[in-house]
Amino acid sequence: MKFSLTTLGTASALPTVNRFPSAHVLNVHERLFLIDCGEGCQIQLRKYGFSFLKIQEIFISHVHGDHIFGIYGLLSTMSMLGRTAELFIYAPKVFKDILKSFLKHFGDGFKYKVTHIVINVKSPELLYETKSIEILAFPLNHRTDCFGFLFREKAPLRNVIKYMIEKHNLTLFEIARLKEGANVEREDGEILKNEELTYIPFVPRSFAYCSDTSPFTELPEYVKGVDLLYHEATFTEETKALAETTMHSTALQAAETALNAGAKKLVIGHFSSRYRDASVFLNEAQTIFRETCLAQEGREFEIPVLLTSGHNS
Amino acid sequence: MKFSLTTLGTASALPTVNRFPSAHVLNVHERLFLIDCGEGCQIQLRKYGFSFLKIQEIFISHVHGDHIFGIYGLLSTMSMLGRTAELFIYAPKVFKDILKSFLKHFGDGFKYKVTHIVINVKSPELLYETKSIEILAFPLNHRTDCFGFLFREKAPLRNVIKYMIEKHNLTLFEIARLKEGANVEREDGEILKNEELTYIPFVPRSFAYCSDTSPFTELPEYVKGVDLLYHEATFTEETKALAETTMHSTALQAAETALNAGAKKLVIGHFSSRYRDASVFLNEAQTIFRETCLAQEGREFEIPVLLTSGHNS
Repeated sequence: MKFSLTTLGTASALPTVNRFPSAHVLNVHERLFLIDCGEGCQIQLRKYGFSFLKIQEIFISHVHGDHIFGIYGLLSTMSMLGRTAELFIYAPKVFKDILKSFLKHFGDGFKYKVTHIVINVKSPELLYETKSIEILAFPLNHRTDCFGFLFREKAPLRNVIKYMIEKHNLTLFEIARLKEGANVEREDGEILKNEELTYIPFVPRSFAYCSDTSPFTELPEYVKGVDLLYHEATFTEETKALAETTMHSTALQAAETALNAGAKKLVIGHFSSRYRDASVFLNEAQTIFRETCLAQEGREFEIPVLLTSGHNS
Repeated sequence: MKFSLTTLGTASALPTVNRFPSAHVLNVHERLFLIDCGEGCQIQLRKYGFSFLKIQEIFISHVHGDHIFGIYGLLSTMSMLGRTAELFIYAPKVFKDILKSFLKHFGDGFKYKVTHIVINVKSPELLYETKSIEILAFPLNHRTDCFGFLFREKAPLRNVIKYMIEKHNLTLFEIARLKEGANVEREDGEILKNEELTYIPFVPRSFAYCSDTSPFTELPEYVKGVDLLYHEATFTEETKALAETTMHSTALQAAETALNAGAKKLVIGHFSSRYRDASVFLNEAQTIFRETCLAQEGREFEIPVLLTSGHNS
């Protein structure tokens, strides 16, 4: 029941010796979602022990080189490793032509299909779902079409309290209805209230990804209450003017978004290469949002599952 | 007067945690020639302290991903670093379309021109020269158009032995003629023989690059007598069948080419990811060619300048 983010790259446009370009892996119950794919992503995936086979979906926030130049190598390597499973790439419209050119020149011998699904939303919209998670895209505010992603674990089926099964002599049908959240009406007209007989086995978790963007009014609403917020912090308040002209955020602005959204934890990354030591970003963000962490190559941020206490637990 | 090769990547098609894809830098008198540009090349260039500004020419042996996927990031970074100097990329014909697509999507704001010069030779041909070096391309034998490169320092102007200047009371014109290698005829008909009055200040050095290729008859002739030969060694004799079907070489075959060419030193690289420990390649090659070295990320192979002993030195 894992739910964790691992950062593979914390650089912004210019990579440095220690900072790779943007790429992140979200592990949801051992299914891996790749978010952005900067140059060297495949090398980082190997370094930190992620199986390429577990990646079925890639989410590209926007088509700037530092978020996408690793896709060529990754797709080629997947082919050489014998991949046959279809791969879905969620990316802005302009990616279509890039993928076409890539497949034309380097796609010979690919035994798997690469499907591009265009992201084009004006407000949060469901992009994709499995039985355990739903993924929404929402617009960001950058120099090109750019989108954030919200990953939300779905509410699990409710558990029926064991001694209630015996007490009420529940049928299998009644148990199934209760698991789905419904009340149950007995033959004698008695109503068994769901909240008295069941509990949620765990609290659904959520993660939001915001890179690259300048701050804007609606953003905190889009990521309201997330357990973990990744937000770019390319600059600091000292270089705020640069953040404005390039449509990026400062560490303080990232923290403000986290604060206004009521996020539980903030991870900042996408650091400008002008800052050798990232602690300046951390200090700035923590002045208003204590629960800030620095992204770092290979660092994992796990959201532990919160089991609720059922009456029989 | 440096003349040295640094390997940035020793992997073949599949990079590993410790092996980056193919990329090499040849430093000729502090001018850097980049040879192949696999994914992560810009990160490796930084790591090993090479200035991007000193690169004016890139040589691409062939358009397979592991030799080219780093070019997108490198070109973008050069732009962000404010490059204005034209960049010349020597690459097979098919690169034209790839470059066009790249510049269309990522070339906005480039303040420098990227010029693709098509390599298309059937035998060794001069590709490029400066006042100190000439670079030839020659065909290799691979699954796609693929070329090797021969870098030859030009013969320097000859030095005139100091005491000969006094002895013969040489004029400036006569000295200039002697430096160029000519004999000098005096007014009285006497012939001053060049070899008696001059010497070469240093012995010109040479380097050849052969990746990717299966062995073929003409190759040793193409790289005859080079001081340093880089040759791919993707497989070993144990996996020779794979080398044949993929049109690569074994370490032994690389050594045979070095031996037949009379190369002074051999560097092997482009190792298959199936071999964790590269010493197996070294041992195999050294059975017939003692002066073999293993390429390694960041390892530099310098050819020291050999000063000749002039009579006045």
